[in-house]
Amino acid sequence: MASLPRNDGAPPPPPRRRPPPRVLLLRHPHHFSLIDRPLPDGFLFLKPWESPLPFDDFLSSADARAAEAIYSSGREPVTADMLRRLPEARLVVTTSAGLNHIDVAECRRRGVAIACSGDVYTDDVADLAVGLLIDVLRKLSASDRYVRRGSWRSEGEFALGSKLGGKRVGIVGLGRIGEEVAKRLEAFGCAISYHSRKKKPYVSYTFYPNVHELATNCDAIVICCGLTEQTHHMINREVLLALGKDGVIVNIGRGPIIDEKEMVQLLVQGELGGAGLDVFENEPSVPEELLTLDNVVLSPHRAVYTPETLSNLCDLVVGNLEAFFSNKPLLSPVTTAKLDSVGFS
Amino acid sequence: MASLPRNDGAPPPPPRRRPPPRVLLLRHPHHFSLIDRPLPDGFLFLKPWESPLPFDDFLSSADARAAEAIYSSGREPVTADMLRRLPEARLVVTTSAGLNHIDVAECRRRGVAIACSGDVYTDDVADLAVGLLIDVLRKLSASDRYVRRGSWRSEGEFALGSKLGGKRVGIVGLGRIGEEVAKRLEAFGCAISYHSRKKKPYVSYTFYPNVHELATNCDAIVICCGLTEQTHHMINREVLLALGKDGVIVNIGRGPIIDEKEMVQLLVQGELGGAGLDVFENEPSVPEELLTLDNVVLSPHRAVYTPETLSNLCDLVVGNLEAFFSNKPLLSPVTTAKLDSVGFS
Repeated sequence: MASLPRNDGAPPPPPRRRPPPRVLLLRHPHHFSLIDRPLPDGFLFLKPWESPLPFDDFLSSADARAAEAIYSSGREPVTADMLRRLPEARLVVTTSAGLNHIDVAECRRRGVAIACSGDVYTDDVADLAVGLLIDVLRKLSASDRYVRRGSWRSEGEFALGSKLGGKRVGIVGLGRIGEEVAKRLEAFGCAISYHSRKKKPYVSYTFYPNVHELATNCDAIVICCGLTEQTHHMINREVLLALGKDGVIVNIGRGPIIDEKEMVQLLVQGELGGAGLDVFENEPSVPEELLTLDNVVLSPHRAVYTPETLSNLCDLVVGNLEAFFSNKPLLSPVTTAKLDSVGFS
Repeated sequence: MASLPRNDGAPPPPPRRRPPPRVLLLRHPHHFSLIDRPLPDGFLFLKPWESPLPFDDFLSSADARAAEAIYSSGREPVTADMLRRLPEARLVVTTSAGLNHIDVAECRRRGVAIACSGDVYTDDVADLAVGLLIDVLRKLSASDRYVRRGSWRSEGEFALGSKLGGKRVGIVGLGRIGEEVAKRLEAFGCAISYHSRKKKPYVSYTFYPNVHELATNCDAIVICCGLTEQTHHMINREVLLALGKDGVIVNIGRGPIIDEKEMVQLLVQGELGGAGLDVFENEPSVPEELLTLDNVVLSPHRAVYTPETLSNLCDLVVGNLEAFFSNKPLLSPVTTAKLDSVGFS
């Protein structure tokens, strides 16, 4: 028979509670503030920008050294040096779609888990990619400027656009985002092909083993891969020339995947048809030459900035932190398979 | 036994040829000139703008009175009076997607056939409708302006857009164009409903028997119907208020389907969320108040202006003329069913 609890009138001792886990924020958590969302209870968030210490000194402070998790929005690198200096850190949570700012190898070596943004961004990014492609082909932004400056009335009809239906569109990097872009463009009657590190056995789209061959056989290319050493400047002058005078490039990946200087030159010279760009090599700087071209659409790295998606993202950050510190599986862990997919699948 | 042809050495008489049919052009055929396409051989095209006579006098000239076909781009009305004055005319060919410029009843009464643009425009119009909706929701044109004026660098992050996926989109007029818009938006994860004169038995989208109810139950509305007496100002203040502060209206039909003055007022006051407009009540005039709003996208009635579609359109015009004057069926006749579909189906 189980022993009954004693009831001697005294209150039971409070359960011994673990102090709230310390989470180092590398930067003001702007995804939360953009939608007026408070940071969650149950954690002690370290805010280096509120400290009188320079960031580097803050990292060496007792406060930082006790941090058990690092939260990065994707702009601030999580380097091997930083990881060495934060010996208690066992988790990196990032809200970025890419992982190029994190020393993933060092995380693995040190047994630091990584929680990423999962599929939260996928739909918004795919929507913007299609929006940029329609905009460039049909000259939406350019014709909007034409109307706003009164030219429709004074100068008459605007230049012709180009039809989306029937266009051969090449997806560079057929991960989750690339697949969603392809699915949407199929509904417009586009012919989809792709380039990725390896052919996907379950996919019926035409596969090209290199991006130059893809460009040669396409009217438009959509960059859906992450930035890695392999994809840096993968879209070079030769690839852009293969895309050609009527070819369009859309980039919702990362700026440095394209050799921007070459792209700008070819756009100015009319050797490349057009570009829809959400990302640039030196954001928020945009090459001056692009600002006056009517065959480009310039988006300020906003592929994922909708309140709906930010809300889902904040849920995911909180969910990952809570899961990790309750010894439950992460909601969106970076696994080897995931690395393939966000890197360049 | 059949008699053999005589062979007395004389050449056979030339076959008696009908003179080329006269086709009255109401205006310079700009669809042809936009893609540098010559008018076809085999017809005598009457060009009133080359005559010293005023248009009205030209219509009474012997030349015009002998016209067997009338070609209208859609800007020039084909009135009962005109038809009465052109007694030989047996065909009206129009390159317009709408038929509101033609007195269809009078054509019927007089036995004048009408050849329309058929489905040539459908894909381009549907593409632009989706492009306008993405643009308004994700603020593409507005953010392009933001980048071009240097604000990304000087002012920082641009305002949030709104997610397309999950939006409840109502199609007004589920003809061919409406169906193509719906098909595309389904690929983005939108929930489609529609309003039309009658419920379509073969369609699974939710049907609303009036446009006010549609607006009440939707986040965005896309106008895909033609302009008729019934659809004139169908989108009035009450409908727009039902769509609401976050609601978006896209119009690729005809300007006067919306009560433009009310729409402008509600947009300015923030009572309506946004608008993507390819058509206006008094084109090419656009209400001054719209020119500075960031929640509207203004397109200069370009829904169908791609070289690919113009080329198909010119093929269709030529094909219809050739068929008609060879006593073959028109390629794209206006039938009662077609009238339903382009009017308001």
